[in-house]
Amino acid sequence: MGRTLTYPKGVSNTVKRYKHRATYDLGAIHSIINTSQVLNVSFNPGPEDPFPTILPMIGQMGSFEYPSSTIDEPLECYLHGYVSSRIMNLARNSGSKEQGLPICIATSRVDGIVLSLTPNSHNYNYRSATLHGYAKLVTSEEEKLWAMKLITNSVVADRWDHSRVPPTGQKCLEIVAGSGKIRDGGVSDERKDTENGGVTKRIWTGVIPVWEKFGEPVPSDGNLVTEIPEHITSFIADRNAQNQAYAERAVHIALPPEEQH
Amino acid sequence: MGRTLTYPKGVSNTVKRYKHRATYDLGAIHSIINTSQVLNVSFNPGPEDPFPTILPMIGQMGSFEYPSSTIDEPLECYLHGYVSSRIMNLARNSGSKEQGLPICIATSRVDGIVLSLTPNSHNYNYRSATLHGYAKLVTSEEEKLWAMKLITNSVVADRWDHSRVPPTGQKCLEIVAGSGKIRDGGVSDERKDTENGGVTKRIWTGVIPVWEKFGEPVPSDGNLVTEIPEHITSFIADRNAQNQAYAERAVHIALPPEEQH
Repeated sequence: MGRTLTYPKGVSNTVKRYKHRATYDLGAIHSIINTSQVLNVSFNPGPEDPFPTILPMIGQMGSFEYPSSTIDEPLECYLHGYVSSRIMNLARNSGSKEQGLPICIATSRVDGIVLSLTPNSHNYNYRSATLHGYAKLVTSEEEKLWAMKLITNSVVADRWDHSRVPPTGQKCLEIVAGSGKIRDGGVSDERKDTENGGVTKRIWTGVIPVWEKFGEPVPSDGNLVTEIPEHITSFIADRNAQNQAYAERAVHIALPPEEQH
Repeated sequence: MGRTLTYPKGVSNTVKRYKHRATYDLGAIHSIINTSQVLNVSFNPGPEDPFPTILPMIGQMGSFEYPSSTIDEPLECYLHGYVSSRIMNLARNSGSKEQGLPICIATSRVDGIVLSLTPNSHNYNYRSATLHGYAKLVTSEEEKLWAMKLITNSVVADRWDHSRVPPTGQKCLEIVAGSGKIRDGGVSDERKDTENGGVTKRIWTGVIPVWEKFGEPVPSDGNLVTEIPEHITSFIADRNAQNQAYAERAVHIALPPEEQH
């Protein structure tokens, strides 16, 4: 059921599980976060509420202190939120407790529907990533502006320099743990089904690739720029090509031995 | 920033806020859940862990007791999970405390990227839904089978009758509260920007529609059914048409007065 990527815990970069994937673990997890349009942010609203809650937010991995860090290096997760919103207030109030508000950030993306002989062995090709950490408000104006640019350009590449620029409230996650899961490949069925001619002759099996498709841009009523700018057309072309290529390539990645029947 | 749909709390079906949308509130929220490929399920793993966690799971709204219930009637949320997994164990153990494990289920989908004059007023067209409730294990074999069929057919319509059928572990959420948020429409900018010719002549504004696109099915190595069955081809055609139509239509829905500048 997919491979599990382990985020280094604490200061050590030594991954103890799945050592053969250690070199790309951080990069894989950060890439899933950074290419997600929405992150799910979970926290406990307070002692009077028994339920954790989940807010959809925009966010991006990055390092203000070491802006040249690559995707596979330790990074923080910057979240965009209005200063008045509930999670921002909780982060502000628990900030006095030094550690910040304990939150979980998760995202997942379906890359394909895996149709096998029996419902039990149906599956998705997917990517998911989870981070645990303490949320803190970004208070420095310089870091706020930096984070806003990071997040804006993550939605549409290079959009920051093509718009009129001010800052706004940001939150930053100090990560203490993280994990990711990726499932790709073809169909995995139980031997009792694959060896049953009555079943295999009747049931189509295979994968339907799925991806995020960006359509034709629709100008606003007030728009005065007649030609759609290159930073938008190339963003759409690049993302559509990348998304489709990933989903289609994922189908053909060999399954691990334990899933081959 | 979108309109908020309120789920009826308790036994009353009377929605107290946003009365003008009361007739479709439940339906809107349930539809967002039911058309999501993955749900984010948040819970607190235990007193020794300060962080809530989020698992991606497959789920579907439905009523085993009243199977003819329509989408806008009170329903339960059925989640698919392996019996041995962590959340299933927590649900089993807290089941003795009568209420079950407090969980939050959330999902969101981006329908368009709204590009405005300034990063602060950039937005997504999106749909999101959140449910709070108590998770319980489904123990009756009949209900398990019913839920498995419900969930299987939600991934690919009518797949259940086109595969070899057994049951598996399910969980059911008794909902105590829910909410949804939908944002659609075009660009909303601040007057100080729309009235600034230096800004409007330079910056393209509009919406890039986004949707989930299903590609060409790839048969498995072991597949013996040469023609792709109609339940799969029509599923792909229907979903692609619906998804694209929703995202493109959302652009043209009029913004509420407070967002019109």
